[in-house]
Parts: sequence; C-alpha cells; structure tokens
Amino acid sequence: MSAGPGKKPGLFISFEGIDGSGKSTQARLLQEHLQKAGHEPVLTREPGGSPGAEEIRALVLNGAVDRWSPETELLLFTAARRDHLERTIRPALAAGRIVICDRFADSTRMYQGLRGDGLRAQVDALHDLMIRQEPDLTLLIDMEAGAGLARAVQRGGEGRFEAFGADLQVAMRQGFLALADEFPSRFRVIDGARDIADVAVDVRAIVAERLA
Amino acid sequence: MSAGPGKKPGLFISFEGIDGSGKSTQARLLQEHLQKAGHEPVLTREPGGSPGAEEIRALVLNGAVDRWSPETELLLFTAARRDHLERTIRPALAAGRIVICDRFADSTRMYQGLRGDGLRAQVDALHDLMIRQEPDLTLLIDMEAGAGLARAVQRGGEGRFEAFGADLQVAMRQGFLALADEFPSRFRVIDGARDIADVAVDVRAIVAERLA
Ligand SMILES: Nc1ncnc2c1ncn2[C@@H]1O[C@H](COP(=O)(O)OP(=O)(O)O)[C@@H](O)[C@H]1O
Ligand SMILES: Nc1ncnc2c1ncn2[C@@H]1O[C@H](COP(=O)(O)OP(=O)(O)O)[C@@H](O)[C@H]1O
Ligand SMILES: [Mg+2]
Ligand SMILES: [Mg+2]
Repeated sequence: MSAGPGKKPGLFISFEGIDGSGKSTQARLLQEHLQKAGHEPVLTREPGGSPGAEEIRALVLNGAVDRWSPETELLLFTAARRDHLERTIRPALAAGRIVICDRFADSTRMYQGLRGDGLRAQVDALHDLMIRQEPDLTLLIDMEAGAGLARAVQRGGEGRFEAFGADLQVAMRQGFLALADEFPSRFRVIDGARDIADVAVDVRAIVAERLA
Repeated sequence: MSAGPGKKPGLFISFEGIDGSGKSTQARLLQEHLQKAGHEPVLTREPGGSPGAEEIRALVLNGAVDRWSPETELLLFTAARRDHLERTIRPALAAGRIVICDRFADSTRMYQGLRGDGLRAQVDALHDLMIRQEPDLTLLIDMEAGAGLARAVQRGGEGRFEAFGADLQVAMRQGFLALADEFPSRFRVIDGARDIADVAVDVRAIVAERLA
C-alpha cells in the first residue's frame, strides 16, 4: 500500500485458484460491487494487464507447449509482471485505488513450481530480485479439482495450461492450499463449490473487513 | 566447454565492442576462416540467435525508447539469452563445435549497467540465477568512440541503441575496457582502428592460440 499524505491508501487484491474455479467471474463481480459502493477499482489480470505485458503474454501462450523452456517462460512471465506492476498496478495503488488482479505471482509459484527441477527456488529468487511486491489480500477460490476442470472445459479454454489435464489440476489445488499455509497473513480461502452468488457474498465480506 | 568422451570440446567465442567497431564484420570473417580450416563453426548473435530469442529481440527493439523500463528490458533480454543458450549455443558446444557469438552477456552488463540505478547489480544477480555461462574467449574490438559511431551511421543502424549518441558511445568504450579488466582471463582487447584485414589477422592469431 502506498499513498500521498492524507490520501486513502490503495488496496491490492488478487484472486487465485485452479482453472474454472471462478476467479474471473468473482473478480468481475467484486469490481461491479465496489463500483456501486463508490470506489474506482481497477480490474486487471495476469499474465497481461498492461499493453506491453499483453504482448509478452501472447508470445508465451501462443505456439507449442515446448516452445519455451520452463526457465525462459519464467523470465518472460516475470518481464510481463514487471511491466504490469510499473504501468498498471503501482500507479493505481499510488492514486489510492483498489486493484483487483485475476492471478498474480502465486500462480507463477504454482505453475512453474510444479514443473519441478527446483524451479520454485528460481521463481522465488527472481521475484525477490525483480518484483518484490505481494498483494495485500489474496482470495483463493478453492474447489475440488475435477469440478473446476469440467467448468473450464464447458467455458472453452484459451490456452495451453488447461490442456495439462486432471492430475495436474489436483496437484495445483494442493499447491494453492500449500501457498495459503505459507502466506497466512494475506491468503483467505473461499469455498468455490457453491453458487456464484454465495461465493460472491463471502468475497465481499472479506474485502469489506479489509476496507473497514 | 563440454563434450562427450573422446570428442573435441567446443569453444565459445564472443565479440564485443561499441557500435561500428567491426564486430559483425570480424565475426563473419572468422567464421569463413574457420570453415576453410575445416571446422564447422556456428555464427550467431545477440539479442536473438534462436527462433524464440529473435521474436523476443523484435519485441524489445521495435517501438519507442521508453516502451519498456530498463528492468523489464533486462528481463526480456535475459529470456532471449536463455533461449539462445538452450537452443543454439549449448547444443553446438556439446557437439564440439566452435560458437562465434556477435555480442553476449557483456553487452548487457554494458548497456543496462550504464543506465544506472544500480542496475548492474541486478544484471549480475540475474545472470547468476538464470544464465551462468560465460564465453571461453571474448574479443573486444576497441576503438575511439567517435570513429565507431561514424561507421555505424554510415552503415545505417537498425535499432534504438545507436540513437543514444556520442556521449554514451564514449561511456560504452570505457565500460567495455573496464569489463576487460574485470574478466582478464577470457577478454582479449584488439585495436579496431585499423584496416579490416589487419584486425582479422589479430583475431585469427588469438583464436589459433586458443585452439592449439
Ligand atoms: N460458482 C460457480 N458455479 C457454477 N459455475 C461457475 C461458478 N463460478 C464460475 N462458473 C462458471 O465456470 C466457468 C469458469 O469460470 P471462470 O470465472 O472463468 O473461472 P476461472 O477464471 O477461475 O478459470 C465459467 O463458465 C463460469 O460462468
Ligand atoms: N576496420 C574497419 N575499417 C573500416 N570500416 C570498417 C572496419 N570494420 C568494419 N567496418 C565497416 O563499418 C561498419 C560497421 O561495421 P560492423 O561490423 O557492422 O560493426 P559492429 O557490428 O561492431 O556494429 C560496416 O559498414 C563495416 O563494413
Ligand atoms: Mg479466468
Ligand atoms: Mg553488428
């Protein structure tokens, strides 16, 4: 959080969770809710979220799965995150706005970390070196892996990650829950296996508590 | 250097120097010379040198000078270098070939390092984390800055860096010479303010000594 003297500090909220858990849906509903409440929230997403980062996103996500090695992909995602932070997130926080981000660094810890080869250590070192920013609040939309995958398939996925399959979805769910244990002060776990409206009620309550 | 049992180890040679010093010219002449001598050298360049790295190169070099922050640009160049290493340089070295690279990490140390803000420390940390490879031999084509700039302008530059101007060219020359002091075991400084053929004689002699 950062703000000038007398200004309301911004609040940086991220949504995390497996594919199909409802992150994008809930992020949009939270934005609408906060707008009606008189805030001017910024809704953004990763990878992407700034013009340069969107170009890098396109470079990473198009093409064959083995087009980039895990390490090169990690560097590209970190470049996109740096641009997104500099051009979108930090200016909004400095202006006292609420930033709602659909995925952030925890998704990288998950996706890249799961690929093994000690990559999680490189993810962390790269984050410490080039990013050094965590959300104030991370909402983990948690649900049983198979149900999320079914939703994502029904919606129609955009990218490579959804092609990784059910086993990886299970490992990701566990991975996100492990991150919630690792960063307990900013993570809140929400049961995503309910109606959209019920999940949204929980999201609002947690955010209201943080804004109070 | 790396090779299978009984195989000749590869040799990784980089050319460095200010714009217009003659790196590309000398790299090409060295390739031709080694080919005639029965080697199968690989001539490559940075940024770029592999299909993925060339795409990243295009993303970095096109557009306005302030399109990317120095840190984002550093991450993109490091991603390109990682891809170039994995897909082009290491396979060639592993096959016992001589790799001639027109610019490598020293150019990043120079260009990014000169931009200040302690970026050289980040350059080094990122290199240690994600690259960890130095050339066996670095040929620094050294010459007075103004003369190099005049040559580069005459040739017609491709990119943004040549637009940085004469002062920066002077600082770069000094910066490359400082790198030669920092890494004396792999750097050789060659006087580039002579005829192309005379410079090429020096290049061949140094490489022959390393191959002997
Ligand atoms: N709680 C929910 N119950 C049923 N369907 C949902 C729920 N949340 C989201 N969906 C639907 O599931 C699909 C995936 O939701 P989405 O918000 O895109 O997930 P994510 O962004 O986490 O991948 C969409 O078609 C969405 O309408
Ligand atoms: N020793 C030299 N004397 C005169 N002109 C040179 C010499 N070396 C290179 N050139 C010319 O100067 C220009 C820049 O050379 P180039 O090899 O592209 O430099 P760099 O790759 O270091 O920027 C080219 O037009 C080239 O033909
Ligand atoms: Mg989504
Ligand atoms: Mg050149």
